[in-house]
Amino acid sequence: MIDNTYYNEADHGPHEIFKLGDFPLNSGDTLRGTKLAYKTHGVLNDKKDNVILFPHMYSGTSKSMEMFIGPDRPLDPEKYFIILPGQFGNGFSSSPSNTPPPFNMGAFPDIQIGDDVRAQHRLLTEKFGITELRLVLGWSMGAEQTYEWAVAYPDMVKRAAPIAGTAKTTPHDFIFVRLLEDVIKSDPAWNGGFYTEPDAVHVGIRRHAQVWSVMGVCQEFYKRETWREVGFSSLDDFNRGFWENWFLPMDPNNLMCMSRKWRYGDVSLHTGGDLKAALGRITAKTFVMPFGNDMFFPTQDCAEEQAMIPNSELRVVDSLWAHFAMFCLSDKDRQAIDDNLQELLDTTVK
Amino acid sequence: MIDNTYYNEADHGPHEIFKLGDFPLNSGDTLRGTKLAYKTHGVLNDKKDNVILFPHMYSGTSKSMEMFIGPDRPLDPEKYFIILPGQFGNGFSSSPSNTPPPFNMGAFPDIQIGDDVRAQHRLLTEKFGITELRLVLGWSMGAEQTYEWAVAYPDMVKRAAPIAGTAKTTPHDFIFVRLLEDVIKSDPAWNGGFYTEPDAVHVGIRRHAQVWSVMGVCQEFYKRETWREVGFSSLDDFNRGFWENWFLPMDPNNLMCMSRKWRYGDVSLHTGGDLKAALGRITAKTFVMPFGNDMFFPTQDCAEEQAMIPNSELRVVDSLWAHFAMFCLSDKDRQAIDDNLQELLDTTVK
Repeated sequence: MIDNTYYNEADHGPHEIFKLGDFPLNSGDTLRGTKLAYKTHGVLNDKKDNVILFPHMYSGTSKSMEMFIGPDRPLDPEKYFIILPGQFGNGFSSSPSNTPPPFNMGAFPDIQIGDDVRAQHRLLTEKFGITELRLVLGWSMGAEQTYEWAVAYPDMVKRAAPIAGTAKTTPHDFIFVRLLEDVIKSDPAWNGGFYTEPDAVHVGIRRHAQVWSVMGVCQEFYKRETWREVGFSSLDDFNRGFWENWFLPMDPNNLMCMSRKWRYGDVSLHTGGDLKAALGRITAKTFVMPFGNDMFFPTQDCAEEQAMIPNSELRVVDSLWAHFAMFCLSDKDRQAIDDNLQELLDTTVK
Repeated sequence: MIDNTYYNEADHGPHEIFKLGDFPLNSGDTLRGTKLAYKTHGVLNDKKDNVILFPHMYSGTSKSMEMFIGPDRPLDPEKYFIILPGQFGNGFSSSPSNTPPPFNMGAFPDIQIGDDVRAQHRLLTEKFGITELRLVLGWSMGAEQTYEWAVAYPDMVKRAAPIAGTAKTTPHDFIFVRLLEDVIKSDPAWNGGFYTEPDAVHVGIRRHAQVWSVMGVCQEFYKRETWREVGFSSLDDFNRGFWENWFLPMDPNNLMCMSRKWRYGDVSLHTGGDLKAALGRITAKTFVMPFGNDMFFPTQDCAEEQAMIPNSELRVVDSLWAHFAMFCLSDKDRQAIDDNLQELLDTTVK
């Protein structure tokens, strides 16, 4: 069990822990001594009808999404009870990095998005007695969890905002994510997931960051040197200072746990492979929000899924930051996302 | 000196060799005992005005482009004298794999696109006495050579068809190609370019093929399983049977020699970095032919360059095969390319 210092509450803020014990996984495996780490903002009202659930993306923690929460923002903690669940593998919830032997590191079981969402459902129902979610939203792998929520628990989810993600991982996305995994494993220090310390695999993690640099934003972003707007001085200053800096402190097995969930993300597991039937279950008012120029969740892929969701609209947010518009490094991106979320929250639903 | 059996005339057809001796490179280095391997089709007429020059792409040889030559095709050997020069690093022209020590393998000097084109110019002028090119065309790195020809020797080039390539490598393309190189070098057997045999680096080459699988075609190609149309049975059957199969027999240093030229391709080296001035030199009637959905030579990048070329037109060929439309695995792609080439050849120029 490696205690990676990156995953600490001084940097990521305090978490609550919901204990799930031995948690049965969709695969048939069991996640032993399961912990679901989460954060909350605001107060649950008496009717328990002011709940927003906001799971996070690959490589993130619950803290990653807190930048969207504020008294003058759509996600207003003075009005809503906002729950930020940590996905398995994020270093706070059960993860390869914090699980004791023999299920630690490279021996951590394979998890599915559906496992995360079932665990989150238990947190909401057992711990808080919540039966209704005013909004579920998430970006990237957070969008995958959002779709899973809307399909698995349609009666609970009143509004959904899957942002720059898909309900079923596309084949192109599958090979992109597999490449992300393969370049980490290409580092001899990886050693089947049993490295001496996380930083020993830093060359693999740097390579993984390089794949992100090619696919994470868009061609035009680099041509216009948009990185200058956020203080970088050269292509490589950005390449290392942004991409490598983000991923380097993380635990390689944790990343691999999350990417594997991403790679096999598929709500049609609920309907024998019928995606249209799965998405047809959604009753939530849904804003499908792709980011323009996204190279692995292209607008077209998101639009095709949106067309299968009964009460949905397509809301494209165009940005040269492409998939990373969610980082809100441009005020315009933040405003466009907020405007859509506000409109969705203001929509009357049954 | 490794004699890779892949580069043999039984498979790639007979080549002529033009000897350039000790060839001074743009970098200041010297390429010793320089050989330019080439093929020709058709007969040079008395006026020497029926010449078409057709350099090839990354990872290819002169044979790669021969599928465009035929009596019922625009590149008709009964009308034209068609020269297919092999770029340095292709395994037939001077390459890391066929150069004797001490300049072999990882010690082979860095080459630029401009070096290739100067060598080709010497072949055409010294060997054949050619002063006029009816058409220069090329795909991908062949397009880069086409642009270099049109900028360096504007008086010679009457028509130009740069297909799915750019005159100056964009920053996004730069990091994509650098990633291609890095994943080869990630293989411990690479050993700074001094591997025991080319196949020892097969894991790096496979990884390199995986990057191609993510960037070489487009998202929609995979979603529609377009690979079924050419006989593959699954995503991985295609991933290995197409991408890995193409690259596996090649010499890693040869690939690296070509990719480095690609990464630094830039006609504005002629004009102190002024791309508009460089492209403004072109007098050839030029059809800039990007392929729709190309992820590393996007139409927009090609269109921006086309706008700087005086006597040019933008001709987009749309295909789910994206950058690999040039393989003509769809008849529609072949026809669209041929139609444009025929129209360009039929255009009257000064």
